[in-house]
Amino acid sequence: MTITITAFERSPDGGMGLARDTRVRWALEEAGLAYEVRPVSFAAMKEPAHLALHPFGQIPTFEEGDLALFESGSIILHIASRHPGLLPEDENARARAITWMFAALNTVEPPILEIVIAKFIEGDKPWSQERMPLIKGRIRTRLNQLSARLGDAEWLDRNFSAGDLLMVSVLLRARPSGILDEFPSLAAYVARGEARPAYKRAFADQLAFNTARH
Amino acid sequence: MTITITAFERSPDGGMGLARDTRVRWALEEAGLAYEVRPVSFAAMKEPAHLALHPFGQIPTFEEGDLALFESGSIILHIASRHPGLLPEDENARARAITWMFAALNTVEPPILEIVIAKFIEGDKPWSQERMPLIKGRIRTRLNQLSARLGDAEWLDRNFSAGDLLMVSVLLRARPSGILDEFPSLAAYVARGEARPAYKRAFADQLAFNTARH
Repeated sequence: MTITITAFERSPDGGMGLARDTRVRWALEEAGLAYEVRPVSFAAMKEPAHLALHPFGQIPTFEEGDLALFESGSIILHIASRHPGLLPEDENARARAITWMFAALNTVEPPILEIVIAKFIEGDKPWSQERMPLIKGRIRTRLNQLSARLGDAEWLDRNFSAGDLLMVSVLLRARPSGILDEFPSLAAYVARGEARPAYKRAFADQLAFNTARH
Repeated sequence: MTITITAFERSPDGGMGLARDTRVRWALEEAGLAYEVRPVSFAAMKEPAHLALHPFGQIPTFEEGDLALFESGSIILHIASRHPGLLPEDENARARAITWMFAALNTVEPPILEIVIAKFIEGDKPWSQERMPLIKGRIRTRLNQLSARLGDAEWLDRNFSAGDLLMVSVLLRARPSGILDEFPSLAAYVARGEARPAYKRAFADQLAFNTARH
């Protein structure tokens, strides 16, 4: 059965790899699965056909035969649960790896996304600049805790897992602001993620996809 | 094996059921599992013993034998994967229910939590009041989309699942602001969740736990 995901017709980042389809592409590459990508315009994202796939009008979505999913975390967990390479065999280790998936999405990413809100959604407001140090402070709190836990380990819980895949993807969004590089051990952790052949293929493919449309 | 979770020694909401241990209690009650609760003070939450369990210094955590987990989403998925009652048997339906878990935590909860940031964390800032309509607008966008998808169905995807458990838990946090009640079908959906015997037991237990300490 063919796997089809959706991506921005024109990614707001122009192919920097920060849109959420990159995470899903990376997981598919780690699992060695072929897939097709259907571009969706911002207008089409809010139309009934896409809302039937994704009730919140976003990308990515995942379709395979009868199954349609949304939410990159859920899509990656689905791929990781059915194919080797992204979750450990041992039951307890698997539960811990899934914990890191949730931690990346629910604890580490929200403060990082606040920068996007302050800069782009509330960028014209008088408080936008003044809020930035508070937002950055909240990100630093999380990255401090994360780097304390990572220590000098290669990955968050022994071997690379979908938890690392999501944590690296989330941390990449803290790089443009310069905050990631304030934490050398986390910057090195992200670099280890980026060095994986599967990440490189995913990044190159989303870049080619976006470049073809710009 | 005994299951032990952690909860605030003194919940900031004084027992309104909005702290994240309530979700985990609810899941444990749906699965019919006995558990113990260990209170953690705000000071102890930032100490090494608790940070070993939860690297971000929060509650709840979950311990059972050798296994220690954090992140309420991950804990609930762990419970739901190993006990009947919270996820459908059918593989595709199960993947869709898990999608709703991620949607509740990653798409619906973050804008709702912005109210907490504006009110309590940035409450002394001059922009706090002025930002509120923007924040509420973002919440309304999500609740509009969610109510369009729910329609007149009882639950998000046929039978009650861990996806509904988390979505109801997240929506409850939009009630104090009055926004939930702007969406009667979602308010009724939340009321259906609250009417479940397992929710009632979880709520009563967290209330008794908090009342005993106030």
